[in-house]
Amino acid sequence: KMNVESFNLDHTKVKAPYIRLAGTTQGANGDTIYKYDLRFCQPNKEHMTMPGLHSLEHMMAEFSRNHHSQIVDISPMGCQTGFYLSIINDDSYDNVLSLLDKTLNDVLKATEVPACNEVQCGWAASHSLEGAKDIARKMLDEKDSWTEVM
Amino acid sequence: KMNVESFNLDHTKVKAPYIRLAGTTQGANGDTIYKYDLRFCQPNKEHMTMPGLHSLEHMMAEFSRNHHSQIVDISPMGCQTGFYLSIINDDSYDNVLSLLDKTLNDVLKATEVPACNEVQCGWAASHSLEGAKDIARKMLDEKDSWTEVM
Ligand SMILES: N[C@@H](CCSC[C@H]1O[C@@H](O)[C@H](O)[C@@H]1O)C(=O)O
Ligand SMILES: N[C@@H](CCSC[C@H]1O[C@@H](O)[C@H](O)[C@@H]1O)C(=O)O
Repeated sequence: KMNVESFNLDHTKVKAPYIRLAGTTQGANGDTIYKYDLRFCQPNKEHMTMPGLHSLEHMMAEFSRNHHSQIVDISPMGCQTGFYLSIINDDSYDNVLSLLDKTLNDVLKATEVPACNEVQCGWAASHSLEGAKDIARKMLDEKDSWTEVM
Repeated sequence: KMNVESFNLDHTKVKAPYIRLAGTTQGANGDTIYKYDLRFCQPNKEHMTMPGLHSLEHMMAEFSRNHHSQIVDISPMGCQTGFYLSIINDDSYDNVLSLLDKTLNDVLKATEVPACNEVQCGWAASHSLEGAKDIARKMLDEKDSWTEVM
């Protein structure tokens, strides 16, 4: 068995898009971190291109925190098929569904990518607002299947 | 002021490579998550290419957990200039320096990328062991400057 949770997941069996609790971390004092696998693309069939993914990362990281106060981290997967979302002390799967729904709707309404300049970003040239909106729109179109992982 | 910590960081002032505590999250029960900005590339000057970054993600996520038991997450930045590392209940910056040193040395010794197949990975074709080693080697060569952020 490998250390990384997703290395023990059969990526040929999953049905993207989906939202899956990938694991929890228990702190010694009683806090719990819930890490979700937000899978946008079918593994090994499709993937997000980087400028759209990068813009979506900026918008999800910024906008999600207007809807939820306990977000620890939102980060892309290196395989470009999804994101990991880590939340502390909220065990509600429904809250995560609702959070992603609201956040992606914010993306559709955005008129610019936040912080896409050389002062605030590590690679300001690698952004696409339209690319991010296309990814968000496709994900929202399939909202009914987010809860079906396999 | 923006929600995302790095959007309030002046990326024109930093000197990569560096390791920086980006922020902490306090759980209501007393646990603390420390999130580090592991910056491999100078913002807006250079970036990692995706196959090497993706392989490095697999190796850092897998190997780091052999050296530290309290890792919550290791994930790439969408800007391709670094990674975020989240650790729970270990406030030692020196431990993070040592963890990255050991983990990148494991990368140099690796003979294959763990989990780079269609069962265990979301995009098995997008990997480069040599690309990951080049990134790791360059980072280790500049180890003396990891503690200098600006
Ligand atoms: N995962 C973090 C930050 C997301 S935005 C990250 C961006 O910051 C910048 O340094 C880079 O351009 C990168 O793309 C979070 O959830 O806060
Ligand atoms: N951030 C996580 C996982 C890293 S490996 C992630 C990989 O899992 C797979 O689903 C994808 O191929 C992706 O590239 C962690 O720290 O455990």
